[in-house]
Amino acid sequence: MDELLTEFPVVIDLSVSWGDMDALQHVNHVEYFRYFLNGRVSYLERLDALNLMEDTGVGLILASIQCRFKRPLTYPDQLLVGTKVEKMENDRLLVRQALVSMKLRMIVAEAEALLVAFDYNTNSKAALPDELKQKIQALEK
Amino acid sequence: MDELLTEFPVVIDLSVSWGDMDALQHVNHVEYFRYFLNGRVSYLERLDALNLMEDTGVGLILASIQCRFKRPLTYPDQLLVGTKVEKMENDRLLVRQALVSMKLRMIVAEAEALLVAFDYNTNSKAALPDELKQKIQALEK
Amino acid sequence: MDELLTEFPVVIDLSVSWGDMDALQHVNHVEYFRYFLNGRVSYLERLDALNLMEDTGVGLILASIQCRFKRPLTYPDQLLVGTKVEKMENDRLLVRQALVSMKLRMIVAEAEALLVAFDYNTNSKAALPDELKQKIQALEK
Amino acid sequence: MDELLTEFPVVIDLSVSWGDMDALQHVNHVEYFRYFLNGRVSYLERLDALNLMEDTGVGLILASIQCRFKRPLTYPDQLLVGTKVEKMENDRLLVRQALVSMKLRMIVAEAEALLVAFDYNTNSKAALPDELKQKIQALEK
Repeated sequence: MDELLTEFPVVIDLSVSWGDMDALQHVNHVEYFRYFLNGRVSYLERLDALNLMEDTGVGLILASIQCRFKRPLTYPDQLLVGTKVEKMENDRLLVRQALVSMKLRMIVAEAEALLVAFDYNTNSKAALPDELKQKIQALEK
Repeated sequence: MDELLTEFPVVIDLSVSWGDMDALQHVNHVEYFRYFLNGRVSYLERLDALNLMEDTGVGLILASIQCRFKRPLTYPDQLLVGTKVEKMENDRLLVRQALVSMKLRMIVAEAEALLVAFDYNTNSKAALPDELKQKIQALEK
Repeated sequence: MDELLTEFPVVIDLSVSWGDMDALQHVNHVEYFRYFLNGRVSYLERLDALNLMEDTGVGLILASIQCRFKRPLTYPDQLLVGTKVEKMENDRLLVRQALVSMKLRMIVAEAEALLVAFDYNTNSKAALPDELKQKIQALEK
Repeated sequence: MDELLTEFPVVIDLSVSWGDMDALQHVNHVEYFRYFLNGRVSYLERLDALNLMEDTGVGLILASIQCRFKRPLTYPDQLLVGTKVEKMENDRLLVRQALVSMKLRMIVAEAEALLVAFDYNTNSKAALPDELKQKIQALEK
């Protein structure tokens, strides 16, 4: 399945839980945002971003997220979440994500999240720390 | 607070639960999608859309949703969710929503959801039933 | 409905969300534990327990919880959660809770939670602060 | 880790999600009930219980569940959930479950769930289908 996600440097796998389905007997769309959150957390871990955040006092805040739903999911299924930084600006990251169903063998949803840097010392917007930018460039090749 | 939501024909109120907060001690963004879902369900109930769906076999599927987060939420807080149909086409509805914090006295998040009509009899895209369109026009004035 | 909950000094009201239902089209039992958590949080707020916790460094930890499910819940419904301290020992509280469906006009679930005092300064079990015990006695009459 | 769960015929593995933690920076106890639900669903799948339910019209309803929390969980962690039928009566199953943290290398929570047979044709309590009982006996050895 990974061939569907070759452009994504970080890919995690997840299982659909029976309880993720709602009364229409599909996975509720709210759960997709949990899956994508797991993907972004894994990406940030690969950057050691949490320690960096503690060192610099600068963190990343989710400013917006958009998701397109292409196919419904049902239990049971195994999922892959691919995550990449699509675009990096001075103070923000545009993150693109794709969700693959192993049962359907296709991308079932796509998301774009905008993360902005925030300095918790001054409680204001900030520039991305240089070390974070370098790590992202290295991870994205 | 309703003066922030005058353009929205359907407004519901919700409470933040303590458990909606995550380890960063703000309401997790995933919960916002639950709040907005509650708002859309209430809107559709006002249209008697569920019965209409059973009569016609045509339902509404969430094709995409986007949310912009403007301020973090914390427990305790009372929320209002305003929902309106921004644009109605032959086979789809663009729904706009706003989330108000009573504690912050402002709109803290905005969402746009695209709903497309789907005929469960033929398993294919469909036109919006006329009765639904008329009810939406009446509700939106 | 409150006549079903006369013995409970703290009663809150909640709404069932459509998304609380699972693929069997009943509210998933996991959500009941959210409802009961909301009830206990409200009870503790009535005691000003959070500030007390900060002052003394002694908090309450959930050691166990049990729930009996008597009737299934469906959307839409309004709920009441009643919470009382059934028994107070030196270092623990036994909390009893009941969940009322306004639609069914009956208690649909009952829970018992055991909370134990924990001293975060010494990372060990602790006695309940006297002030907390007095406030509980006053609230329970 | 499986040596902690040798008596459980069905063991599944799960990951803690970052978002499972609450504002106290531990996994919220409500999530434990999701983990245990996943374990019971896997057990029932091993019995092919869903198909059996469709054939006979007799299903299993959760009558009560109890959980003892022994240690807090934090992200990241890998979990195992062990599930066994502790006791089988004519119309009910007592299910015992244990949750293992791979990080802590111990059982961090234990649950007991009572499932009762329910005949959806007659909407009344029922006896467990013989085929289900035989499959459980085989699985439990």
